Amino acid sequence: MTDRSTGVAAAKGFRAAGVAAGIKANGKPDMALVVNDGPSAVAAGVFTSNKVKAAPVLWSQQVLTTGKLTAVVLNSGGANACTGPGGFQDSHATAEKVAEVLGIGAIEVAVCSTGLIGERLPMPAVLAGVETLAKALAPGADSSLDAASGVMTTDSRPKQSALTHPSGFTVGGFAKGAGMCAPNMATMLSVVTTDAAVDQPTADAALRAAVGQTFNRLDVDGGTSTNDTLLLLVSGASEVTPDPEVFTAALTEVCADLVAQLQADAEGVTKHVTISVSGARTDAEAVATAREVARDNLCKTAFFAGDPNWGRIAMAVGNAPTEFDPSGLDITLNGTVVCQGGVGVGDRMAADLSGLDILVEVDLHAGGGRGTVLTTDLSHAYVEENSAYSS
Amino acid sequence: MTDRSTGVAAAKGFRAAGVAAGIKANGKPDMALVVNDGPSAVAAGVFTSNKVKAAPVLWSQQVLTTGKLTAVVLNSGGANACTGPGGFQDSHATAEKVAEVLGIGAIEVAVCSTGLIGERLPMPAVLAGVETLAKALAPGADSSLDAASGVMTTDSRPKQSALTHPSGFTVGGFAKGAGMCAPNMATMLSVVTTDAAVDQPTADAALRAAVGQTFNRLDVDGGTSTNDTLLLLVSGASEVTPDPEVFTAALTEVCADLVAQLQADAEGVTKHVTISVSGARTDAEAVATAREVARDNLCKTAFFAGDPNWGRIAMAVGNAPTEFDPSGLDITLNGTVVCQGGVGVGDRMAADLSGLDILVEVDLHAGGGRGTVLTTDLSHAYVEENSAYSS
Repeated sequence: MTDRSTGVAAAKGFRAAGVAAGIKANGKPDMALVVNDGPSAVAAGVFTSNKVKAAPVLWSQQVLTTGKLTAVVLNSGGANACTGPGGFQDSHATAEKVAEVLGIGAIEVAVCSTGLIGERLPMPAVLAGVETLAKALAPGADSSLDAASGVMTTDSRPKQSALTHPSGFTVGGFAKGAGMCAPNMATMLSVVTTDAAVDQPTADAALRAAVGQTFNRLDVDGGTSTNDTLLLLVSGASEVTPDPEVFTAALTEVCADLVAQLQADAEGVTKHVTISVSGARTDAEAVATAREVARDNLCKTAFFAGDPNWGRIAMAVGNAPTEFDPSGLDITLNGTVVCQGGVGVGDRMAADLSGLDILVEVDLHAGGGRGTVLTTDLSHAYVEENSAYSS
Repeated sequence: MTDRSTGVAAAKGFRAAGVAAGIKANGKPDMALVVNDGPSAVAAGVFTSNKVKAAPVLWSQQVLTTGKLTAVVLNSGGANACTGPGGFQDSHATAEKVAEVLGIGAIEVAVCSTGLIGERLPMPAVLAGVETLAKALAPGADSSLDAASGVMTTDSRPKQSALTHPSGFTVGGFAKGAGMCAPNMATMLSVVTTDAAVDQPTADAALRAAVGQTFNRLDVDGGTSTNDTLLLLVSGASEVTPDPEVFTAALTEVCADLVAQLQADAEGVTKHVTISVSGARTDAEAVATAREVARDNLCKTAFFAGDPNWGRIAMAVGNAPTEFDPSGLDITLNGTVVCQGGVGVGDRMAADLSGLDILVEVDLHAGGGRGTVLTTDLSHAYVEENSAYSS
């Protein structure tokens, strides 16, 4: 059912491009453009919850109030955050340039940026890059890969996904970054496209449902960036109108695949950790508990060591904003029960955490709520990458 | 005015001891005893807010409901947390043994433990250790040092403080651990003594005020442990009854000195970082904002690098649970303004963070609230120590 090789221009009606525009000093790809040729121009988006929002986020939120987008232009090499009114004018000028070369209105163009916070973008390079991008626009796998590559910062590889449903519609996209949570000054950016013929309310509801179960469940280091943006573009070119539940499921599958790629390429990652909490009073409390474990540096260094030190997990669970009776706490590591009824059982070393994947299961025995958060370990490489990077 | 060399038995009416009882396999000191010879037995305490509380915390909270304590027995080498009813019986039995050798009631004995979570204590060693401790009890500097040494886990040195007020009363004490926040399975334990003649409500109020400004403002890694305990013992032996404000100020000074020593000896520390927030709507929001920066791994790795990457601080401030206008955000690093009105100013590299001390000043321009949190950097040594330790 799936062909995950083709990315953001996999769905009918989309073209993409990626180029090295000279924003990055090292000459690597640093700009991308995605264009929706229709017939629909429906779009939906979700943006960072950080109160310090980058200029391109403020711009894109504004133009998306129409519920429509024809193009998205993205750059790496600079976040254009904490750049004041001048930075906002830069985002606006970039959209105007895209509108000019495509013969559309600037209000149809979203802008995304990622990189170091607090520096203005080199606008001559950006505006020249837009012209190069427009000439390179094409459908298919090569241009999808170019676009996915143009937004990379500390990513070691592009992240793409695509899925064609048996009923005839396709969902595809790319993502960059190592989480919703700002690893480095890199930030999470993602553009997902579909040729399904869905209206704006359906697209918006499906996107929010998918994000709640995928992107918002990845927590690498707790730091939601100033630039996080996920945009969904709908061309309708397949002329297939799926049931909203079918469409949401397909969109969720593509998003989950992109998130798994983000987790696998997170900064310094040596372990892929899944924290699954059940028995909470509510699903929200289960997610909050899983997130507390996912953010705890003592748990994360134990994961790095492959150390089944479940006492650190019990400590983190005890600090979570949730109500439970500690004498009912169960903890299972990669299938081995290590804590039952709040007390250690058996030999903790029987839990084998030496492999790449670690599954932490916590049962609070306080209700029917459940939720899962994906995270990574805290390694020497994470410290190295984040103490050596930039400025 | 101050003599900070003598610790927990500096005040009149106190004796202390520390021994190697064989709980730790490496033969290092692992037990301590502090005895209040009166005439007063007033005591106050604060305990971890973690919902998963260690057995000795449950025991000590119970006996402290009387507002009085005659002795505190402490051990390192095991946290006695997540050990169930059997673990609670171990704490009780330890208190009974202390009561027996001192000729007092078990209800007058608090118990503190620190070390790995989830393992039962070797009770024969603990009970024999109590007998050894009782024989070693003495006033003065040597026994204070022994007691401070007996509770160390990953601490590299004992932390002690004492202060004699001109009016004639003394406050002294020790602390162990690298924060309120569980570094390793080590936990924050502290015993502070005074010969001031203050009643229980005064002692309790002074302790809570002092802790709010000192211990609760240190955040090494966000993980409040299962065992955190701070006890204040009052002998009244100086026969001086200070004004409550004078007493609170003296107690706060000793606590602040102990906290500075905890910060300086935090796991893997290479930078002593002070996050000072002003202009918040309330003091609580200022502290919450400072804590968000203190807990952010991207900020902490930048501190490790001595990198004035203020964009990461802006990102963390934007994630804090506080209301402010991002276009009013000012950030100053070691006296150099790097962000003003939400926009970068000047050359960020003019801020020199190469030394041991880093002062981060954030002004939200949203009100008159202010607050400070102490933290440390996130270094390779932190990862090493926490991935190599135990189990």
